[in-house]
Amino acid sequence: MKLKKLNSLFILGLVLLTLTSSASDSNIEKQRQNYRGKAPKYIFYFIGDGMGLSQVNAAEAYLGAINGKNGIQKLEMSKFPHHGFYTTNATDRFITGSAAAGTALATGHKTSVNTIGMDASKQEPLQSVAERARDLNYKVGIVSSVSIDHATPASFYAHQPSRSMYYNISLDLSKSNFNYFGGGGIKHPEGDGKLDKNNIMANFGMGDEKEVANKQTNSIELAKKRGYRLLNTKTEFHSLKKGDDKIIAIAPRLVGGKALPYAIDQTSKDITLSEFTKKGIELLENNKGFFMMVEGGKIDWTCHANDAATAIKEVINFDAAIKVAVDFYKKHSKETLIIVGGDHETGGMALGFSGSHYHSAFDILQYQNISNDGFSEIVDQYKKDNTDNYKLEDGMALVKKHFGLGDIEKGLELSAFEKEQLKNAFEKSMNYKKEFNKDDQFYLLYGSYNPLTVTACHIMSQKAGIGWTSFSHTATPIPVKAIGVGSELFSGYFDNTDMAKNIFRLLESK
Amino acid sequence: MKLKKLNSLFILGLVLLTLTSSASDSNIEKQRQNYRGKAPKYIFYFIGDGMGLSQVNAAEAYLGAINGKNGIQKLEMSKFPHHGFYTTNATDRFITGSAAAGTALATGHKTSVNTIGMDASKQEPLQSVAERARDLNYKVGIVSSVSIDHATPASFYAHQPSRSMYYNISLDLSKSNFNYFGGGGIKHPEGDGKLDKNNIMANFGMGDEKEVANKQTNSIELAKKRGYRLLNTKTEFHSLKKGDDKIIAIAPRLVGGKALPYAIDQTSKDITLSEFTKKGIELLENNKGFFMMVEGGKIDWTCHANDAATAIKEVINFDAAIKVAVDFYKKHSKETLIIVGGDHETGGMALGFSGSHYHSAFDILQYQNISNDGFSEIVDQYKKDNTDNYKLEDGMALVKKHFGLGDIEKGLELSAFEKEQLKNAFEKSMNYKKEFNKDDQFYLLYGSYNPLTVTACHIMSQKAGIGWTSFSHTATPIPVKAIGVGSELFSGYFDNTDMAKNIFRLLESK
Repeated sequence: MKLKKLNSLFILGLVLLTLTSSASDSNIEKQRQNYRGKAPKYIFYFIGDGMGLSQVNAAEAYLGAINGKNGIQKLEMSKFPHHGFYTTNATDRFITGSAAAGTALATGHKTSVNTIGMDASKQEPLQSVAERARDLNYKVGIVSSVSIDHATPASFYAHQPSRSMYYNISLDLSKSNFNYFGGGGIKHPEGDGKLDKNNIMANFGMGDEKEVANKQTNSIELAKKRGYRLLNTKTEFHSLKKGDDKIIAIAPRLVGGKALPYAIDQTSKDITLSEFTKKGIELLENNKGFFMMVEGGKIDWTCHANDAATAIKEVINFDAAIKVAVDFYKKHSKETLIIVGGDHETGGMALGFSGSHYHSAFDILQYQNISNDGFSEIVDQYKKDNTDNYKLEDGMALVKKHFGLGDIEKGLELSAFEKEQLKNAFEKSMNYKKEFNKDDQFYLLYGSYNPLTVTACHIMSQKAGIGWTSFSHTATPIPVKAIGVGSELFSGYFDNTDMAKNIFRLLESK
Repeated sequence: MKLKKLNSLFILGLVLLTLTSSASDSNIEKQRQNYRGKAPKYIFYFIGDGMGLSQVNAAEAYLGAINGKNGIQKLEMSKFPHHGFYTTNATDRFITGSAAAGTALATGHKTSVNTIGMDASKQEPLQSVAERARDLNYKVGIVSSVSIDHATPASFYAHQPSRSMYYNISLDLSKSNFNYFGGGGIKHPEGDGKLDKNNIMANFGMGDEKEVANKQTNSIELAKKRGYRLLNTKTEFHSLKKGDDKIIAIAPRLVGGKALPYAIDQTSKDITLSEFTKKGIELLENNKGFFMMVEGGKIDWTCHANDAATAIKEVINFDAAIKVAVDFYKKHSKETLIIVGGDHETGGMALGFSGSHYHSAFDILQYQNISNDGFSEIVDQYKKDNTDNYKLEDGMALVKKHFGLGDIEKGLELSAFEKEQLKNAFEKSMNYKKEFNKDDQFYLLYGSYNPLTVTACHIMSQKAGIGWTSFSHTATPIPVKAIGVGSELFSGYFDNTDMAKNIFRLLESK
C-alpha cells in the first residue's frame, strides 16, 4: 500500500516533470503562437556557413584592433536589436554537417547528415521556406559565395538523399522556378553518367525519359529550356535590370569547388557577395515582396583550414552584404525582416591560445595577404619547380612574403620553436606524397591540408591570440541576430529548426 | 576649393559615421531609459566564473547523452526567456581577468586587470550594485564556491588596487555591513605583516591607528567586533534561521585556495552551493527585499586545467543553485529577477576536436570520478611513496581507476598514440622538478599542471569530442540569461558594464 502510494507519487512526479519540461521547451512555440504582427514583405535570410560566436567576435576584435579601439568594433549584424542562439545537432550526429543544418534552417525539420531537403530516412521531401514564399507569390532569390548547388543553398530548393548528388541537385535548381540565383557555379551540369530513375521521372516526365535514358541532359541546358538565362560575365551582370526574371548569375572567376575567390584574394575583376545581394534586391523587388537567402559559404572552408585572417575577412565581406540589406531595410523598415544566422561553427575557434596566454594582437593578421588556398597553390608550384632541389630558406621567404612571419619590423619575429615547426612543415610539404605516413600526430598538426600552409596559419593565429581545436565542425550553439518585422521571434535560446518554423509562421501572418 | 569641399564632405561623413555608430551602440542605453517597470524586490545575480557558451552547452550535451536524448538537455538557466551576450575586455587587456570583469559586472565600469572595485588608475573607489542595494535598504548576500574574498565576490564589496591584497579585501568585507556571506573561507585574515596606511585609516579610523600600527588586526576578529558571526560547521549552518543577521558562513571542509571542494569530489559532509543559496534566501527574505550574488567560482579553475568532466559537473552544480532561485521565483514571480552571467570564458573550450573529427561521446565523461586537483594529489602521493621506483603500469592503473582510460568495457581503449602521450606525461610527472626544462612545447602540452593529470584530462576531452585552446581565459563574449522583473533588459548584445548599469537602473525604478 505504501509502496503503491510512493509509486503513484513517482508517476505524478514524472508527469509534472514532463509537463514542466515541455512547457519550458515550448517557450519559442508560445512566442510564435503569440505573434500578432503582419507578414514581412521583404525577407533576407543570411547564413554564415561555419560562422559561430568566435568567428563574428574575431572579426570585431580585428576591426577594433586595426582601428585603434579599446575593445571590439561592432559589425553591422551585431547592431541588430534581437539576438538569440540555437542548437544544431542532426538526427544521427551531435556535430552537424551543412546539409542537415541547411535542411533544418530551410525546412524546420531535423534530418540526417548529408541529406538535402528530405526527412532523415531520405524518403519524404520537405518544403522549404523559400518554396513556401514562392507559392505565396513572393519572388525568391538564392545567393552564395560557393557553388549555388552546394549544401546550404541546395537545402532551399532541392530534395535529394545526398548533398554530393550535385547533378540531381542542379536539376532541382531549375525546377524550383525561383527568380534569381547568384554567386558560384554549378558543379556537375553534365551529370556523372549514372542514371537515377526517380530524377528522370521527377524532372523530365515520362515523355522525356527516353531522351534522358540515352544521355543525361546537361542541367544548364535544361535550365535554359525551363526559361532561365545563365550568365557569367561582369558586363552581363551589370546590365541586368529590374524586371529581368529567372536569372542564374555566376561569378566571372571561379576557383576551387566553383566558388567565388576568398575576399582576401578578390580583385576588381570579381563580383562581390554584396554586389550579388544588391542585384538580387534590384531584380526581386516587386509589389508582392521577396525572399532572399544569402550564404557566406567560405567562412566554413577557411575555418576548416584554421586560417584566421582569411576567415575574418570572409566575415567582414559577409557583413558588407548584410549592410546592403540594412540600407534597403532603412527605406522599408515597416515591411522588411533581416535574419542573420549560421549553420554550425567550424574549427573550434577561440579568442585565446595557450602559448600566447592572456595576450592578443589581432592587428598582425593584416599582414597576411593571401588565403590558405592561394598560399598552398604557391607552395605546390614551388615544389613542382624545385622537386629535388628545394631549400628551407625559399620556404621561409614565401612565408615571410605572404604572412609577414619572420619580419621583425612587423613585430613578427619567430621563436626557435616556431622556426622548428615551420621547418618540419616545409619538409612535409615537399615530401608529402613521397614518404610521409599520415598518422594521428600528423593529422593533429596538419589535418588534410598542406603542412606549410596550415602551420603558417596556425602561427599567425597563435601570435594574434586565436586558438583552434579542430579541422572539422563543432556543436557549439550558433548566434542569430534579427531586425525588422517579426524579428522579436529570433530572441532566446532555441533549435535551428525554429529558425524556419518562425519564418513559416511569419509568412502565414496577414 | 575643390579640395576644401572634399574635406568638408569627409568631415561631414565622419560626423555622420560617429552619430550612426553611437546611435547603434546606445541600443542598450535606450532600452534602459525606456524601462517603465518597477524595481525588482528580490534580485539574484549568478556569475559563473569562466562560464562561456561552450561550458553551458557541454553540460547540456552531457546531460543529453547520459539521459539518452538526441541532442541536448537544457539546464534550468537555459530555459529563461531572455538571452543576450556581452563583451568583456578590460581597459588594458582584450582578454580580461576575474577582477576587472568582476568590477565591470558589479559596478558598471571598465577597469584594469587585477583591480577590484576601483577605476583603471586605481585611484577612485566605484560603487557596486550590492552597495547601492544595501543603501536602498535591500538586505545583501554574497555567496561563492571559492573563498569569499576572491576576485568576483570581492568586486561587490571591496575597493582595492589589487585582487591579491586578500587581507585588505577581508577588511572591506566586514566594513560592507552586508547581511550574509556564504561559501569558501577568508584567505589571509592574519594579514601579510605589511602595513597599508590607507587601509588603516579607512578601516580603523585615527583612534585605532596605534593598535593596528603595532600589529595587523586579524580581519576575522575585526569582523566579529563589527557584529558578524562566523561559523564553519554543518550543525551551526543548519541551525541558522530567519532573522539571523551579519552571518559569515564558511564551508566545513575547505580545499586549495580555501574553496569548496569540486562538485565531483564533494561528499555528504560538505555544504553545497545550493544549500548556501537556499540559506541565503531564508536569512535575507524581508519586506524591503534582497540582493544576492552567487558565484560558481570553480568552473574557471577546472577549465584552466582543461578538465571537462569536472567543469561539466561544476556547471550542473551551479545550475542546481540557480534552480533554488527559480523555485523562489515561482512563488514571487512578480517581484523577482534572476540574472545568470559569467565573467569570461576559460580554456577556449569547444565541442569538437580535430582527432575525433565529427564524433562526440559526452557520456564517457561519467567514468571520471575525481577532479584534476584530486588526481594530482594522488599522483604526487604516488611519487612521494615511490621516488626512484615508479612504474609505468602503476601510473596507467591510476589513470584507469579514476578516468576509465584503458578500460575496454567502457569503450575507452587507448590508441598507441594516446598510450605514448600518457607514458611521456607519466615520466614528466615523476621527474617534474628533477630534470625537465619548461620550454614552449612543454607549456603547450601541460600548462603549469601535473603532466599526467592534464594529459588524462585531455584524452578524456578528446574522446568525448571536446577541444581546448588555452590554459588561460579567452575573450569570447559571454552569454547572459534572465527571467523575471526587468529581465527584458538583458536581451541583445552589449558590454559587461551594461549588466551592472541595468541593475542600477532597475534598483532606481519605483
